[in-house]
Amino acid sequence: MRVGILGGGQLGRMLALEGIPLGHRFAILEPSPNPPAGGLGTVVAAAYDDMDGLARIAAAADVVTYEFENVPADSAAYLAARLPALPPPAALEVAQDRMAEKTMFRELGIPTAAFHPVDSVECLEAALAATGLPAVIKTRRLGYDGKGQAVVRTGAEAAAAVVRLGSGLIAERLVCFERELSVLAVAGRDGSRAFYPLTENHHRGGILSVSYAPAPGLTPVLQSEGEALAARVLDRFGYVGVLAIELFEAGGRLVANEIAPRVHNSGHWTLDGADTSQFENHIRAVTGMPLARPRVPGPAAMINLIGELPDLGALAGIPGAHLHLYDKAPRPGRKLGHVNVTGGDEAEVVGTVERVWALLPGEGELPRASGW
Amino acid sequence: MRVGILGGGQLGRMLALEGIPLGHRFAILEPSPNPPAGGLGTVVAAAYDDMDGLARIAAAADVVTYEFENVPADSAAYLAARLPALPPPAALEVAQDRMAEKTMFRELGIPTAAFHPVDSVECLEAALAATGLPAVIKTRRLGYDGKGQAVVRTGAEAAAAVVRLGSGLIAERLVCFERELSVLAVAGRDGSRAFYPLTENHHRGGILSVSYAPAPGLTPVLQSEGEALAARVLDRFGYVGVLAIELFEAGGRLVANEIAPRVHNSGHWTLDGADTSQFENHIRAVTGMPLARPRVPGPAAMINLIGELPDLGALAGIPGAHLHLYDKAPRPGRKLGHVNVTGGDEAEVVGTVERVWALLPGEGELPRASGW
Repeated sequence: MRVGILGGGQLGRMLALEGIPLGHRFAILEPSPNPPAGGLGTVVAAAYDDMDGLARIAAAADVVTYEFENVPADSAAYLAARLPALPPPAALEVAQDRMAEKTMFRELGIPTAAFHPVDSVECLEAALAATGLPAVIKTRRLGYDGKGQAVVRTGAEAAAAVVRLGSGLIAERLVCFERELSVLAVAGRDGSRAFYPLTENHHRGGILSVSYAPAPGLTPVLQSEGEALAARVLDRFGYVGVLAIELFEAGGRLVANEIAPRVHNSGHWTLDGADTSQFENHIRAVTGMPLARPRVPGPAAMINLIGELPDLGALAGIPGAHLHLYDKAPRPGRKLGHVNVTGGDEAEVVGTVERVWALLPGEGELPRASGW
Repeated sequence: MRVGILGGGQLGRMLALEGIPLGHRFAILEPSPNPPAGGLGTVVAAAYDDMDGLARIAAAADVVTYEFENVPADSAAYLAARLPALPPPAALEVAQDRMAEKTMFRELGIPTAAFHPVDSVECLEAALAATGLPAVIKTRRLGYDGKGQAVVRTGAEAAAAVVRLGSGLIAERLVCFERELSVLAVAGRDGSRAFYPLTENHHRGGILSVSYAPAPGLTPVLQSEGEALAARVLDRFGYVGVLAIELFEAGGRLVANEIAPRVHNSGHWTLDGADTSQFENHIRAVTGMPLARPRVPGPAAMINLIGELPDLGALAGIPGAHLHLYDKAPRPGRKLGHVNVTGGDEAEVVGTVERVWALLPGEGELPRASGW
């Protein structure tokens, strides 16, 4: 099948690498020159709202998917009118707006932090009355990797944050969590479902740094809780494809933070730690193939390579370290690749993660798994 | 690094798919239109002995490798004079000539069937005196997948075979073997070595049909014997890259049949059954990266998809079956893809192999693993 992808970054690259062995071919809409996915299919070099570019992708594909959620709504609608556009554009719309997202969680009975919209300093008091303090003031749209948000402890701090961030904001109660987790779900065109084990995620400066999977100490009860709340979101949209939900574990319960209607950085470990990766299952889903229920034979970890690359020869020489580079030029804060770590047991994985971490330039202290 | 590959078939395709995540880029010399590896790098469309094509590949690559052993000697020499050409061209030359191959085995003290060159009917008597009967008469060059050979039981049959096959032949004693095995070895530029577990191979009509790995009942003694004989061949050539040796197990001992100085069909299971595939390790080797010692967590099998494709939806729906398609048009006898099977234990793998086999059009009886 001919699969179109909006976005030619590392997610598109890994989708294509995993989809090509299934017999599919790829066409990629990407405005930047030399995108990471560029060599893996036909590239349509155009902006995501360029009508000619959209028409060319629609003509070059039998199904279209996205590697990022901020696809312009009109573009998604244009594509969905012409060919299957999966996951459903409605999921993109909700993911683009933190208010819509939180409202959906509330409507679905999924625990989430208290929240309230903030359109100006004038309505801040009502918002903080709803959320309490400390709170997080965030832009409703286009925030990512920790950008466009501020933690506030007083009304004065909140007011300053609102002035700085502008309008179209949301206030959320700060969740005092034990750890950050994510759940990865996949839904097939035939309605079947598959889930990966919950993953423990560690961010640095708002950017994912290290994931451990299955999340240390993961119980069947917690896994079921994660799957159940993901299933409610899948149901809501008649979803097809991979869906990630970022979660907090707080007081032993899961609190939903946000959804990503796409393959997700916290699922990159599945390339080596599961017998079927999130990328393969996403492609299976959107092309109408049966899903594969992933088998996860042992513990795994994922370490992002951010900003600059370490000594790759040394990295490749570490047993159990699996290198995935994105063919991107170094730049501070940029995800250039990741290393997956597999091993026979948790101690071995941790030891290998430490060896990998020691090679990373200026990364500070290793974020450690909460239970290993 | 820029890696050139002579040949854009399925082996080149899988080399590129496994090498791209390591950060490498590929240039492929291939005379046929729309080769399986075509979408994964720059294609130089030229014959393997076309000087202009060779010059373009040399200019487009930092190292060059091959997906098949019958590279013209002059082409290999031209490339080796300009950039690292790995595995060493001397290994190609030996692999191209069954006499040179058998002679090398004998010189290295590696058990092989008794053999003798046959240049005409006149020298057949001397040859059969050396080999005994039954024997196999083969062309010295360019035989593959069982083509260009005949089993003979009498002098008259042998004479008829020589007349039919022409000159440049070799007679080999027919080995009465228990089973066919192969050993896959990898040598790095730094002299390091890695080995995969011996694999049990089943051919149909001279074409590999099913492999089981690790070979059922594989003992450490047999594995060591396989590694030791492969190491002698690696030593002989100062070898770099993956080397496969096809073996017979006869009377509990290994008898070498032929070498393939490249990634090999009997190693395709490593894409799913080992944490580092033969393709990744070959690319690591030729690009000067450290080798990865492969971890093989459980039993695996590989089933070739030959001639025509089965119902791919049904195939993809079998848990533990991993699909690898080559994007080739169906044609009788043509390898169109393969399915790797993984599972928790041997019984599960066998059960899954049976389910896969049942979908294959007109394949007859499943070649079963000798011990599972």
